[in-house]
Amino acid sequence: MGGASHVIARDGRYGEVTEDDVKHFVRGVGGDAAGVVVSTSATATNLQDGGGDALDKYNVDWMGKYHGRSRVAVLPKTTEELSAIMARCHARNLAVVPQGGNTGLVGGGVPAHDEVVVNLGRMNAIVSIDEDAGVSVVEAGVVLEELESAVRARGMTVPLDLGAKGKCQMGGCVSTNAGGLRLLRYGSLRGSVLGLEVVLANGEVLDLLRTLRKDNTGYDLKQLFIGAEGTLGIVTKIAILTPRAPTNVNVALFGLDSFASCVELLKLARGRLGEILSAFEFFDRESLDLVLEQLKGTRDPLAKPCPFYVVVETSGSVKSHDNAKLQAFLKIVKNKRVIVDGVVGKDEKHAFALWTLRERISVALKYAGAVYKYDISLPTARMYNLVTTLRARLAPQFGSGVKVLGYGHLGDGNLHLNISCAEYTDALERAIEPFVYEYTRDERGSVSAEHGLGIMKAEEIIYSKDAKAVELMGAMKRALDPRGILNPYKVLPAATRAAALVPMSKL
Amino acid sequence: MGGASHVIARDGRYGEVTEDDVKHFVRGVGGDAAGVVVSTSATATNLQDGGGDALDKYNVDWMGKYHGRSRVAVLPKTTEELSAIMARCHARNLAVVPQGGNTGLVGGGVPAHDEVVVNLGRMNAIVSIDEDAGVSVVEAGVVLEELESAVRARGMTVPLDLGAKGKCQMGGCVSTNAGGLRLLRYGSLRGSVLGLEVVLANGEVLDLLRTLRKDNTGYDLKQLFIGAEGTLGIVTKIAILTPRAPTNVNVALFGLDSFASCVELLKLARGRLGEILSAFEFFDRESLDLVLEQLKGTRDPLAKPCPFYVVVETSGSVKSHDNAKLQAFLKIVKNKRVIVDGVVGKDEKHAFALWTLRERISVALKYAGAVYKYDISLPTARMYNLVTTLRARLAPQFGSGVKVLGYGHLGDGNLHLNISCAEYTDALERAIEPFVYEYTRDERGSVSAEHGLGIMKAEEIIYSKDAKAVELMGAMKRALDPRGILNPYKVLPAATRAAALVPMSKL
Repeated sequence: MGGASHVIARDGRYGEVTEDDVKHFVRGVGGDAAGVVVSTSATATNLQDGGGDALDKYNVDWMGKYHGRSRVAVLPKTTEELSAIMARCHARNLAVVPQGGNTGLVGGGVPAHDEVVVNLGRMNAIVSIDEDAGVSVVEAGVVLEELESAVRARGMTVPLDLGAKGKCQMGGCVSTNAGGLRLLRYGSLRGSVLGLEVVLANGEVLDLLRTLRKDNTGYDLKQLFIGAEGTLGIVTKIAILTPRAPTNVNVALFGLDSFASCVELLKLARGRLGEILSAFEFFDRESLDLVLEQLKGTRDPLAKPCPFYVVVETSGSVKSHDNAKLQAFLKIVKNKRVIVDGVVGKDEKHAFALWTLRERISVALKYAGAVYKYDISLPTARMYNLVTTLRARLAPQFGSGVKVLGYGHLGDGNLHLNISCAEYTDALERAIEPFVYEYTRDERGSVSAEHGLGIMKAEEIIYSKDAKAVELMGAMKRALDPRGILNPYKVLPAATRAAALVPMSKL
Repeated sequence: MGGASHVIARDGRYGEVTEDDVKHFVRGVGGDAAGVVVSTSATATNLQDGGGDALDKYNVDWMGKYHGRSRVAVLPKTTEELSAIMARCHARNLAVVPQGGNTGLVGGGVPAHDEVVVNLGRMNAIVSIDEDAGVSVVEAGVVLEELESAVRARGMTVPLDLGAKGKCQMGGCVSTNAGGLRLLRYGSLRGSVLGLEVVLANGEVLDLLRTLRKDNTGYDLKQLFIGAEGTLGIVTKIAILTPRAPTNVNVALFGLDSFASCVELLKLARGRLGEILSAFEFFDRESLDLVLEQLKGTRDPLAKPCPFYVVVETSGSVKSHDNAKLQAFLKIVKNKRVIVDGVVGKDEKHAFALWTLRERISVALKYAGAVYKYDISLPTARMYNLVTTLRARLAPQFGSGVKVLGYGHLGDGNLHLNISCAEYTDALERAIEPFVYEYTRDERGSVSAEHGLGIMKAEEIIYSKDAKAVELMGAMKRALDPRGILNPYKVLPAATRAAALVPMSKL
């Protein structure tokens, strides 16, 4: 792993897991052996060598970038079990990392050191689906795609979709305030999530699990846990709006000769497609080349290569109306020469193939080697300048072995900037950071549009939030987790965390 | 004013405004005489007698239900002026009530005793309107209707609309998390508000004023101030999504013979009108009778009276498509005999007249005398049971002089329950409360769907939130306003507030 900035010393305030703790955990999960996984290595330091330790899947993130050294993972099946486990960890001052599908991109879901892993994967019941109200209640460990299948069978949809849907869990989605492909249509989880059940740092259960669309009784505490990446509490149950699924979906892919044309296309789509516009995604040729190179069965979607591509999705309730709107849109963008070429998905399979080109870029990046990932909000019209600027910056030193790719949710002003290379090196990281963060700060953008901060960007929060805001976040941390046992080393800068925590001498 | 429950003793921890304070306030607003309004009565206790004191408009809410006795109102023109005023109040431990258009319904925007009124009405600049990004930035005192006019001229709309739009201010809308008529289409302000500037209790300015659609860098602090009713900070600037205005709006009014039919109509509307359904409101015959009785120029919309009415609004981008969807919907609801009768607005004026019948119920209630207002979320299908139950409960004791009306945002599960009577009496209030709150609790509903808690329902939060949640709200209060000078006596129960505040002896 490259990047000295990620190496944070273990904080001596936390206890170390003992045999006695493990016994408590086993009791906590009702004696169920599958509920507690203990390291099979003689020494925890061997874990990074890929020696096949039972804890590897809990210790290492899916990109292989972040490696923890936890000796135990606990997998509760109920809120009560988790509550007992947290009470023990709190009493013993054991640090804990809550973990979902382990699909995060900023090292937020794996231990930094020897934190107890609390994996929610076995709390995976769909509690209720209310078709009339359009509301579903699930446990945190339900996989996004499984919920989508379950509600689809009743004519509804989850207002969230992302590449990791086959593995990511709803609790993780909520805890990271995941954005994804449907945000343009349904807005963020801050509006879609109606209620939460949360286990607090000391094991207390906070019941905010209402299914009401409107509730203005006091401060909206659930918002604190949405996007807190498990640093303020562990989300155990979620009530979420599941709106009626659109009965008719169209997908079109366009080739364009400039980023400015992509922005012009967005403006026309907003005006002409109006209420049926449900996604507007872009990627550059460099991204497409990588997908074609790495993923079997993909092919160039248009006759000639273009420097930019846009995927537009429409979703509506009357097929003939949607088709008419799309045709009118196509006519205009052709006449105005905003696009070079384009193709409309002629059936579901074809539409899926077009979507795949955009959706699987991140998988292609993983196959291609190491990748530095940045997830940035910028003013839409100037968004791509960062990609070209960074290319110019890196080329002299690193040559063609380092590729800079840009893609993302153009309709939301969200760029995914990716630097693909053979391996992580300090030299490359130093050439990228803090440059990318400073550039974003100067544009008043966000250094994390949707991925969160995790361990990767805990110190970088200062590029998007002013000092007073970060200080207040510390106050929230102190109010909810004064011992700092929940997902330490993450989200907040070390100095803020240190100032927020109650000193050990006072515990 | 009826109801002993609203009489809360003045808290001796707060200072009293002196001549010296007033001089500081005048300096704080740059010596501008219009910026500080001082009571013109010899004694503050005369204020309730309607003696025409200059402070009356700041001390009394628009319903005439809540009467404060403040001696001074300050009207800053800039964030810096407000910051200086708050620094003074903080240093002197003066309690403050932030005030917008004074259109609230729970006594949240007027003083309970002698709090300094901070009225935002002169901070009324529209800072920027970004047509490309669909984002507007305004000062807190901008009136909702003025913002709507300004963005309409650029083809956009505000994702919020309510009866008080001609007077309510954006800062108040955000601070109360106002719901209103467009929530069904655009979701709540928690999704639409992108950034805030807030002046904190001690005068510090918290800059969260970003215009990004997505920003996952740390805890979303702005959510704390949305719906906090000015108890955690004073909202001074707002960045809000202003989406493209629909180019085509249709309004239809239906008469139905049961509440169950209204619910059936909603289900059909969701399915058939899909993405163009933008409002679904209901009212009962009792509400309509009051409007026809109190408001000139209104008339019965249908040939025969019906026990229930529904207003459906559609908004879309292609007129012919919208009309076709609406016609198909009409055909089905007639064939299925879900409705008794109906009428579609034939032009803008007619549509406005139909909307008026729903929108002006609350004005008609005001003209009719005293009114007890409850704003409740309940399971949609059983929502109206509360109205009939309360009617049966009150009739024996109070006869026909007391009318129970039900209307509201059926599409959001939100009932406005109103009890209209000649004057406020303790006997009537005791017959209504806590019955209404207990009923709501037993249905796991919300005792305030969109109006907030204010002073009216500060103690009633316990009917919708569990003890741990209320305790955590106290912790938020302590973190942001440890002296408790911001809008005291409101939102949180007295015991929670007392526990949250730093004792005077430690200040």
